[in-house]
Amino acid sequence: MALHLMRKARRCWSFIRALHKATASASGPKKDVMERVFSGIQPTGILHLGNYLGAIESWVRLQDEYSSVLYSIVDLHSITAPQDPALLQQSILDMTATLLACGINPEKSILFQQSQVSEHTQLSWILTCMVRLPRLQHLHQWKAKTANQKHDGTMGLLTYPVLQAADILLYKSTHVPVGEDQVQHMELVQDLAQGFNKKYGEFFPVPKSILTPMKKVKSLRDPSAKMSKSDPDKLATVRITDSPEEIVQKFRKAVTDFTSEVTYDPASRGGVSNMVAIHAAVTGLTVEEVIHQSAGLDTARYKLVVADAVIEKFAPIKSEIEKLKMDKDHLEKVLQVGSAKAKALAYPVYQEVKKLVGFL
Amino acid sequence: MALHLMRKARRCWSFIRALHKATASASGPKKDVMERVFSGIQPTGILHLGNYLGAIESWVRLQDEYSSVLYSIVDLHSITAPQDPALLQQSILDMTATLLACGINPEKSILFQQSQVSEHTQLSWILTCMVRLPRLQHLHQWKAKTANQKHDGTMGLLTYPVLQAADILLYKSTHVPVGEDQVQHMELVQDLAQGFNKKYGEFFPVPKSILTPMKKVKSLRDPSAKMSKSDPDKLATVRITDSPEEIVQKFRKAVTDFTSEVTYDPASRGGVSNMVAIHAAVTGLTVEEVIHQSAGLDTARYKLVVADAVIEKFAPIKSEIEKLKMDKDHLEKVLQVGSAKAKALAYPVYQEVKKLVGFL
Repeated sequence: MALHLMRKARRCWSFIRALHKATASASGPKKDVMERVFSGIQPTGILHLGNYLGAIESWVRLQDEYSSVLYSIVDLHSITAPQDPALLQQSILDMTATLLACGINPEKSILFQQSQVSEHTQLSWILTCMVRLPRLQHLHQWKAKTANQKHDGTMGLLTYPVLQAADILLYKSTHVPVGEDQVQHMELVQDLAQGFNKKYGEFFPVPKSILTPMKKVKSLRDPSAKMSKSDPDKLATVRITDSPEEIVQKFRKAVTDFTSEVTYDPASRGGVSNMVAIHAAVTGLTVEEVIHQSAGLDTARYKLVVADAVIEKFAPIKSEIEKLKMDKDHLEKVLQVGSAKAKALAYPVYQEVKKLVGFL
Repeated sequence: MALHLMRKARRCWSFIRALHKATASASGPKKDVMERVFSGIQPTGILHLGNYLGAIESWVRLQDEYSSVLYSIVDLHSITAPQDPALLQQSILDMTATLLACGINPEKSILFQQSQVSEHTQLSWILTCMVRLPRLQHLHQWKAKTANQKHDGTMGLLTYPVLQAADILLYKSTHVPVGEDQVQHMELVQDLAQGFNKKYGEFFPVPKSILTPMKKVKSLRDPSAKMSKSDPDKLATVRITDSPEEIVQKFRKAVTDFTSEVTYDPASRGGVSNMVAIHAAVTGLTVEEVIHQSAGLDTARYKLVVADAVIEKFAPIKSEIEKLKMDKDHLEKVLQVGSAKAKALAYPVYQEVKKLVGFL
């Protein structure tokens, strides 16, 4: 039986190698130095205006700027907090629909589900053996997340930055679009890449952060805070799937000040400046153009103008999400094909890692 | 291209399913309740008398007592401490040769290399999200291992008991032969199995420890300490590959007391009682029989009798190890076939886990 099994196994690996070749050739004209973008998003929670303007819009743009781009639905990271399995499963498909509707194009980038590529946790274990407890305990996010909890967070929550490093390094990624809250985690990724290279020889590129001009959208109820999916005040956050009525209601109730004129001054007039910033971002106009257009409007009427602009921006995305959600088979296939392409890139890299570490 | 790839992928999975069936039917007559033994050994360091009498001898016996038995060379655990890659690679093959020579029979048990079965780290991540930092920090082994270090140990050393739990649960193992130093880790495995079952529904058997009558072999230089591969006193530990001259020298220099008679009294005469215990273990005689045979010998002469018995016991194993080491291809094939069989058992279990958690 043994030889028969070995032949079958070899056929499996040759399939993966063939897939790897196909993926490599499909990724467009090569630059002298291969540049590769990687980013990930958790599937839990519905995308909101802050995510969209802060990250997803730049993800769409990066597809045209880099020859190789990977976007991962990082379901392994989702379980660092408790999840309902049925809901998680649904969220993975919903996030796929949302990203496609926002303009992530599987012909231009590899859109895949993290848990379907086994090499993420495999590389993560090797990196886990290269980092010490105090380094992870001193990360702001761990400190912030465990500070409000009665108990400590799980080991998953403590070690997820190491898995994140594996996510990035597994594809020899060179560029990672990040928000400010991820700067410390990117330093860890860079240190782990350098640490690995020092121990086992030059292997991983040290990935750079892409500091895109991220638009920081504030809560509609508290302009000093970031818009967040977990805000307990339901009126604070505009979700990409909100109905036009909900969007109008949220903007109508948005906290501004007692000056009726529309001006842009984030330091002293946070509320109305947030409206202006959102308005500019969803229309593609500059802040000056938006202010000019709004001359003569009081803030109450201006809120409705911004609400309309947001509704107009999201309308085609929203209807595309609804359409895509009807075709579960299509969404599953997109993820399957994307995950197979990611696997085809990850497999040879991790085989090399295994050789370097001494497992092969 | 997509459909072509999907067909290829399906062929891969059907190969794995076929392998699974083959393995299941090869594992002998089924009992009403499937019983499965799992144990692991790190590949680093040469097996010594203590390992052999304390663990490997019982591994050999368990092959005939249980219908399904897995023994893993746990190379992922080895890297929780720094390793030289070339040495690690060699050690994996050497340990394979040693286990085969000791009587581990790939027709009776699945002998495999942990790092070749990706599901170990995948399940480990899920379990990592179910355990909290203090639980791991309070484990004796972590406390003991970090107490003598200037720096804290790596995160690998802290979290390896979770990987160990994944090793065991991945095969729905029911029985695990363990030493006393692993009792706390087995409690963690049991708690994780129960915690998973509570959250996701009855799935994992809660594995039991097999408390075999393990022979605790003491250091030849300090009868109050366990024989250990990392003992700085080279005379303390008898390795399975030592030459007859080395074995004689080590026993000749073994610490005993000033009474010349051979008696068995571990509490007050640790040194000579250790000799008697080793003598009984390697000959298969009882302690009483050994004492009876040794009447009239003084301890100096008795040490040489025990050395001879050990040499006689190890001689065929030693020559078999040397023979096996000559055939690297054979050793690699044994591991490849074993790892494919382990994969075939692990794959469907982890697919079920993925469904339960919400990844599928």
